Amino acid sequence: MRANLLGDLAEVLPPEGLITDADVLEAHRRDQATWTSAGVPHVLARPSSTSEVQGVLRVASAHRVPVVARGAGSGLSGGANALDGCIVLSLTRMNRILEIDRRGLFAVVQPGVINAALKTAVAEQGLWYAPDPASWEFSTIGGNLATNAGGLCCVKYGVTGDAALGLEVVLAAGSVLRTGGRTVKNVAGYDLTRLFVGSEGTLGVITEATLRLRPRPPPATTLVASFPTLVGAGAAVTEIMASTRPSLLELMDRATVRAVEAIRPMGLDMDAAALLLARSDAGGEQGVAECARMAAACEASGATFVAQSADEAEGELLLGARRFAYPALEKQGTTLLDDVGVPLSRIADLLSAVERIAEQRGVLIGTFGHAGDGNMHPTLVFDRNDPEAVARAQAAFEDILVVVGELGGTITGEHGVGVLKRAYLSRQLGSEATRVHLAIKASLDPLGILNPGKML
Amino acid sequence: MRANLLGDLAEVLPPEGLITDADVLEAHRRDQATWTSAGVPHVLARPSSTSEVQGVLRVASAHRVPVVARGAGSGLSGGANALDGCIVLSLTRMNRILEIDRRGLFAVVQPGVINAALKTAVAEQGLWYAPDPASWEFSTIGGNLATNAGGLCCVKYGVTGDAALGLEVVLAAGSVLRTGGRTVKNVAGYDLTRLFVGSEGTLGVITEATLRLRPRPPPATTLVASFPTLVGAGAAVTEIMASTRPSLLELMDRATVRAVEAIRPMGLDMDAAALLLARSDAGGEQGVAECARMAAACEASGATFVAQSADEAEGELLLGARRFAYPALEKQGTTLLDDVGVPLSRIADLLSAVERIAEQRGVLIGTFGHAGDGNMHPTLVFDRNDPEAVARAQAAFEDILVVVGELGGTITGEHGVGVLKRAYLSRQLGSEATRVHLAIKASLDPLGILNPGKML
Ligand SMILES: Cc1cc2nc3c(=O)[nH]c(=O)nc-3n(C[C@H](O)[C@H](O)[C@H](O)COP(=O)(O)OP(=O)(O)OC[C@H]3O[C@@H](n4cnc5c(N)ncnc54)[C@H](O)[C@@H]3O)c2cc1C
Ligand SMILES: Cc1cc2nc3c(=O)[nH]c(=O)nc-3n(C[C@H](O)[C@H](O)[C@H](O)COP(=O)(O)OP(=O)(O)OC[C@H]3O[C@@H](n4cnc5c(N)ncnc54)[C@H](O)[C@@H]3O)c2cc1C
Repeated sequence: MRANLLGDLAEVLPPEGLITDADVLEAHRRDQATWTSAGVPHVLARPSSTSEVQGVLRVASAHRVPVVARGAGSGLSGGANALDGCIVLSLTRMNRILEIDRRGLFAVVQPGVINAALKTAVAEQGLWYAPDPASWEFSTIGGNLATNAGGLCCVKYGVTGDAALGLEVVLAAGSVLRTGGRTVKNVAGYDLTRLFVGSEGTLGVITEATLRLRPRPPPATTLVASFPTLVGAGAAVTEIMASTRPSLLELMDRATVRAVEAIRPMGLDMDAAALLLARSDAGGEQGVAECARMAAACEASGATFVAQSADEAEGELLLGARRFAYPALEKQGTTLLDDVGVPLSRIADLLSAVERIAEQRGVLIGTFGHAGDGNMHPTLVFDRNDPEAVARAQAAFEDILVVVGELGGTITGEHGVGVLKRAYLSRQLGSEATRVHLAIKASLDPLGILNPGKML
Repeated sequence: MRANLLGDLAEVLPPEGLITDADVLEAHRRDQATWTSAGVPHVLARPSSTSEVQGVLRVASAHRVPVVARGAGSGLSGGANALDGCIVLSLTRMNRILEIDRRGLFAVVQPGVINAALKTAVAEQGLWYAPDPASWEFSTIGGNLATNAGGLCCVKYGVTGDAALGLEVVLAAGSVLRTGGRTVKNVAGYDLTRLFVGSEGTLGVITEATLRLRPRPPPATTLVASFPTLVGAGAAVTEIMASTRPSLLELMDRATVRAVEAIRPMGLDMDAAALLLARSDAGGEQGVAECARMAAACEASGATFVAQSADEAEGELLLGARRFAYPALEKQGTTLLDDVGVPLSRIADLLSAVERIAEQRGVLIGTFGHAGDGNMHPTLVFDRNDPEAVARAQAAFEDILVVVGELGGTITGEHGVGVLKRAYLSRQLGSEATRVHLAIKASLDPLGILNPGKML
């Protein structure tokens, strides 16, 4: 059967698109997620066109072999992890920018285009592709779409799905579906674009995307504020969001600040309960005025230190601490970068609960993230060689997901469910939503060959 | 069977929720769409709670009787039109605002809440519910969600779906589904919220919605510009969108301007090919600067007249012409308010094609709409008592849809498919997307009782 599978794949792919080398397969077994299991793929398919993707899915359907779509493999939930005997379908060779329409404000790209490559190409035409996951320099547009990736600027400009005007998707049986189009508004039929966005390769393989472009925003003014209490920082976030439109609003808790200072001393307040970083790109005087309003909100909420700068280089320096948050925590041990969301008003509650859990479980947890969206990354740091420490970290991880549920939040705000959170999804969705998910999955992938065992 | 139906409904609804009075039924047969057929409902159900909606759907399923959900009946595509023997399920009694969370920046509402009522209630807390269809004073949130309604401000702040964080939906068999939640970002599972948004009552009945609130934007600066050519106006639109972030960008063509001047002389340029109205709410000096940039874009594109005002009252006066566009055209005969979308770069092409069609078919067509989104409303004016004039208008209507297809556009940008455009949908979607639509419909409404014959 397997030899047969390879033979059939060889009919639809050129030799360079069909790889069975054990080392290469090994390199395509996992994404960047901690604590997730991964199988051994039978073969790596590297199609260079939509019709080759169709061919692979036809063969996979005929053989009933699972297919795991893969972009850069930078995912943090195991979504791109292989299954034993599966076909890993890498889209990285389909990396052409097909069209940039400056007047129509859209780009048409293949799924393997790196986010940064698209940003650069549209910048040359004076435009901006907004979505900016921290992995923008290596993650693919296809992966960004399949996970509905977020980032720093989505507090003002939306997530990847908000930039998706239309998709080309190859369905399980090999047919090609086109969703949406080239218009910003479109209510002709169901919003299939949004159904595939965030579906983590379980409903179809994205082979082309039409993406919305925007004008470059004006240079930003940056603010940093430190708070003696979490409650104060949380209040500042809600006040800022209720009165201004920040283009960035990030938070770092004490454990994260200390990790950063430990490795790259920047003179941050090591005793602060939390640090807020905010930006306004309203432009010119208005940007300065908006930052002043945010500064006032911080002071009214008890900030002990507030600094701002309209200078871009200085702003980048201030933001440096946030960009360094995860690398700094990584220096302290093995990390699990978690990703949860709560309603805006519950950020302080989440942070205190995480602090309590860290203490109770005896685990170092540094929390930072996209405060303006209520989307936080509690990052668990532990010694992977100490089974007892791993067990405590795992218990803390579960505790956090329970708390998130109690706060009316979500088990994942931007990294996806994948393997890592699969066991927790149906608790959040409830039985009826779970049933609807399975019904939609069955209607689009009746044989269940698309990334089985992920998300659902 | 029918008596039985009423008896069964009486088990799940109180007397005031169950209406068979012929005059009342007659008043619930149609929405505001021209040229659409409507049947005679068997009964009007007016539930006051989710559990009553569940009861109605259980009974409808048992009897296999079609259910047509209905908000204010202000739709423009016949989506809420009755079918012979159906249950019209009016949500207008479920009109409570359940929660406004100022710190969490969301509101929880029942579907029958009028858009304007929500805007007012949140304004009292210093907040803003953005979506603003021109029908905001009478259309319901449920209807706005089910059509994914647009409006004037969506060029900057998005459509109704962009404000939907979560829904409660009663499915065909009577079960209750909850989608999304209270967080801005959420990738736990498929985006079911967006699947129901814009589904025109064909997948489920929306019984509650959690909606995103925002801070009130600063006062706007308004600009008006007139253009001797459509190409110039189109170029100005693309230039403005590529360089600024208008909070409103509307267009009126010559026929519309003339209709307005004929009835309420405002000194508009009757020889202009098109008038643009734009706003910036960037605030303060930045708003003025953004308007100046838009003015420069207009002049560079050949505008013969440009005026702007930072004064709110004066701005409202300038915008008056646009608000008066449809009523002015209505004064000239029976109207069909069409709704199409094209890529931003094709607006001039659309407008010239519509002018050509108007001439060829001998029909008055005034076109106005949301230029910044490429979403236009060619409005056909004819004498409904002259069958030949009606036939010519119908031919023009079809011509426009063909042109829209050729320009890579959509047959509906915000009003929906309903009955009016049902025959044209599958041409736009293609056979595979049509098949996927039917598969999803079948998976959620296997008996086909939810608004059958609409959209699909
Ligand atoms: C240092 C670092 C920083 C990060 N920062 C962020 C961040 O700020 N925000 C954020 O949201 N994420 C972030 N991530 C996570 C990750 O980068 C994103 O999830 C990204 O979108 C994954 O893209 P990828 O190309 O690596 O996809 P992969 O990891 O290869 O795949 C991700 C998922 O998408 C599916 N998939 C991939 N391509 C396709 C396709 N063409 N069609 C269908 N399904 C497909 C896979 O099956 C898998 O389920 C970060 C990761 C790292 C390592
Ligand atoms: C003067 C005027 C101006 C307008 N301006 C705009 C505009 O600027 N932008 C715009 O987009 N539209 C506009 N419209 C069209 C219309 O107002 C919108 O489509 C509006 O969203 C319909 O709301 P409604 O409550 O009247 O819904 P209805 O007309 O009653 O129903 C519309 C559709 O939604 C379904 N539906 C209603 N409630 C529910 C529910 N709770 N659950 C499931 N399905 C439901 C119905 O079955 C139907 O298919 C305008 C209409 C008029 C008359």
